[in-house]
Amino acid sequence: MSEILEIGKKAKAAVPQLSNMGSEKKNQALEVVAKMLIKHAQDILDANAFDIENARKNSMKEGLIDRLLLTEDRIQGMADGLRKVKGLEDPIGEVLSMKQRPNGLTIGKKRVPLGVVGIIYEARPNVTSDAFSLCFKTGNVVILKGGSDAINSNTAIVKCIRGALDSIGIQPDMIQLIEDTSRETAAEFMKMNEYVDVLIPRGGSGLIQAVVQNATVPVIETGTGNCHIYVDESADFNMALNIIFNAKTQRIGVCNACESLVIDESIIDEFMPLVKEKLETKKVEIRGDERALKAVPSIIQATDEDWGTEYLDYIISVKTVKNIDEAIAHINKYNTKHSEAIITKNYDNAQKFLNEIDAAAVYVNASTRFTDGEEFGFGAEIGISTQKLHARGPMGLEALTSIKYIIYGNGQIR
Amino acid sequence: MSEILEIGKKAKAAVPQLSNMGSEKKNQALEVVAKMLIKHAQDILDANAFDIENARKNSMKEGLIDRLLLTEDRIQGMADGLRKVKGLEDPIGEVLSMKQRPNGLTIGKKRVPLGVVGIIYEARPNVTSDAFSLCFKTGNVVILKGGSDAINSNTAIVKCIRGALDSIGIQPDMIQLIEDTSRETAAEFMKMNEYVDVLIPRGGSGLIQAVVQNATVPVIETGTGNCHIYVDESADFNMALNIIFNAKTQRIGVCNACESLVIDESIIDEFMPLVKEKLETKKVEIRGDERALKAVPSIIQATDEDWGTEYLDYIISVKTVKNIDEAIAHINKYNTKHSEAIITKNYDNAQKFLNEIDAAAVYVNASTRFTDGEEFGFGAEIGISTQKLHARGPMGLEALTSIKYIIYGNGQIR
Repeated sequence: MSEILEIGKKAKAAVPQLSNMGSEKKNQALEVVAKMLIKHAQDILDANAFDIENARKNSMKEGLIDRLLLTEDRIQGMADGLRKVKGLEDPIGEVLSMKQRPNGLTIGKKRVPLGVVGIIYEARPNVTSDAFSLCFKTGNVVILKGGSDAINSNTAIVKCIRGALDSIGIQPDMIQLIEDTSRETAAEFMKMNEYVDVLIPRGGSGLIQAVVQNATVPVIETGTGNCHIYVDESADFNMALNIIFNAKTQRIGVCNACESLVIDESIIDEFMPLVKEKLETKKVEIRGDERALKAVPSIIQATDEDWGTEYLDYIISVKTVKNIDEAIAHINKYNTKHSEAIITKNYDNAQKFLNEIDAAAVYVNASTRFTDGEEFGFGAEIGISTQKLHARGPMGLEALTSIKYIIYGNGQIR
Repeated sequence: MSEILEIGKKAKAAVPQLSNMGSEKKNQALEVVAKMLIKHAQDILDANAFDIENARKNSMKEGLIDRLLLTEDRIQGMADGLRKVKGLEDPIGEVLSMKQRPNGLTIGKKRVPLGVVGIIYEARPNVTSDAFSLCFKTGNVVILKGGSDAINSNTAIVKCIRGALDSIGIQPDMIQLIEDTSRETAAEFMKMNEYVDVLIPRGGSGLIQAVVQNATVPVIETGTGNCHIYVDESADFNMALNIIFNAKTQRIGVCNACESLVIDESIIDEFMPLVKEKLETKKVEIRGDERALKAVPSIIQATDEDWGTEYLDYIISVKTVKNIDEAIAHINKYNTKHSEAIITKNYDNAQKFLNEIDAAAVYVNASTRFTDGEEFGFGAEIGISTQKLHARGPMGLEALTSIKYIIYGNGQIR
């Protein structure tokens, strides 16, 4: 039997113990895991040092090395994350509704775990403990497939978590790491419908598309965000500039950063110079259409490719539109259904934008950067769904659950 | 451009008109469609006659011909179905929660359409109007891919519906039928992620597995039901016999029919002869394990293959178990996560069964035949989901919706 099939079987076998585990025991386990991560921090750092050394040998970019790097503080952060999830309310077991039918059957809808969750991610080792904590709290067994660059770090973290579970009588297979980082194994993993209930890819668009294209297991598509801010003719310029500056530059490498401005033609001559001035302080490159270029000739000319590009960099595109209908059509054509904002003082425009933009999160007069589980008050998140099925937008604990109907009868037949 | 790609583009283009259409207009359209189906009943019957003639030429089984056959009564039934959906509450637009965050942002969760729904089905022409009505009521554009056996009937029904929509100023592309019934077109349809938000296959397990295995568009897996009834040692024999008889024989070709009995060893000698006697009145073939055979030697010996078989016929298997743990393990191993029942007077067994059986619907002392949108009080159903993502069990209107976050700010930045 292949290693991956063996992992799937072990995961499935571990499901009954976890799906019926009470919150007390789950919380105790999260606390023990947090302690063990701190206790074994040096082992994890040693393993991470190997990964960093290999990454340098392979000339990995410094930005990516920073994502891969663990420090004592970051391991403390992982432990803090586990304790935070421990403190969240356990959604499992809640009966969402219970109704009696005319024939006397009582039908309840109960929140249950999904079963086995597969997480496919890249080179951030902290995802290993984050994903475990969220899956475990919601009664889900997790199978992790991290990037080859982080394999030593991930192996050390998973070993530590498994040891912690084992120490309090919990089957350690609640978390398993796929150590074989080959493409073939990944492909097999994505087709294990018998053993895996859902796959959640976390990472860049290449990874996510590879999973969407190759998986037969249901996938929750996360991530890519080609987010727009539309500034209409009634907008408060000062508010618009602050929001644009925040959404573009506060953190450039994230999916809820703004990648494109859509500006009403009636204000473009007055507003564009202010945008240019504001974004210049962070050396943001502006790529505009012809009309924007006419307003500020010193910016770069955009190509059609720009409209669909998630830069994740100090670059932003500018599209000029005649009215809100054109703005909505442009955004719905090029967006990735993530986060979109309008800056306006006009009531009708605000309502129209909220109604007609097709995205997980639609904002009036606020930065797109708020699309985040913490900011939405979910306490934590496993990712941001950009699909419409099952979960949309920031996914908290509830996104990791399913339901089951429980029916109480006394002999009913049809 | 291929025909199917053209259909996808037209569907996408029709989305904005429908997703923002109010309930009044949608209900008016459903009424007009119902009237038009009756008005054009003869055209539809004529088209159906071609399909029936072809089916006879191709030696289709009588049972399947009956599914394909339309009559005036059945067309009236389709119209009644449309009016029933018209009478259901429109779930679209409901704001499920709206909360203010500490920074003053107000975040609402609003129910919205999925967008474009693809339905892949076999030779029941009534699915054409059923699926349309449910998708339309929930603001979803629908693309239908019916079986080649029903192509003339489906074409006539869709033509009638499109004409009705057009007559009241609604873009007829809200419903499109893929007339090319080739495998290649089906394969292309299942990978049109840009144009289709979800695929729902309706039909036999072969069709459903083909969609699950080949689609890159998110799928809601429906259908197959290898449903069990477990009779524990405390069961009221009379109640158990009535429920078994109902669940096995009331309608044999449906997914919530019972296919297998699981019986406690302590009662097998006393109970099996009664089961045999009861099921004999409908000539049900019983395939039992060795222990069941010992209790009633005249039944047939089951093979391991029987445990995983959805007969959809007058056949039932019988598995003997030592206790409830063995019963649960057996059922969780062989079931298709559809509907499972326990017949018991024992409180602990009832609770344990409800908690530990992994299925969409778990029953105590009632027939598995109740797993159905109408019986659950949803008014209608688009299918029964046997997966855990997005929807589980009977899918009413809500299963055809997604959510979007709407956020009201006044200049918030991070």
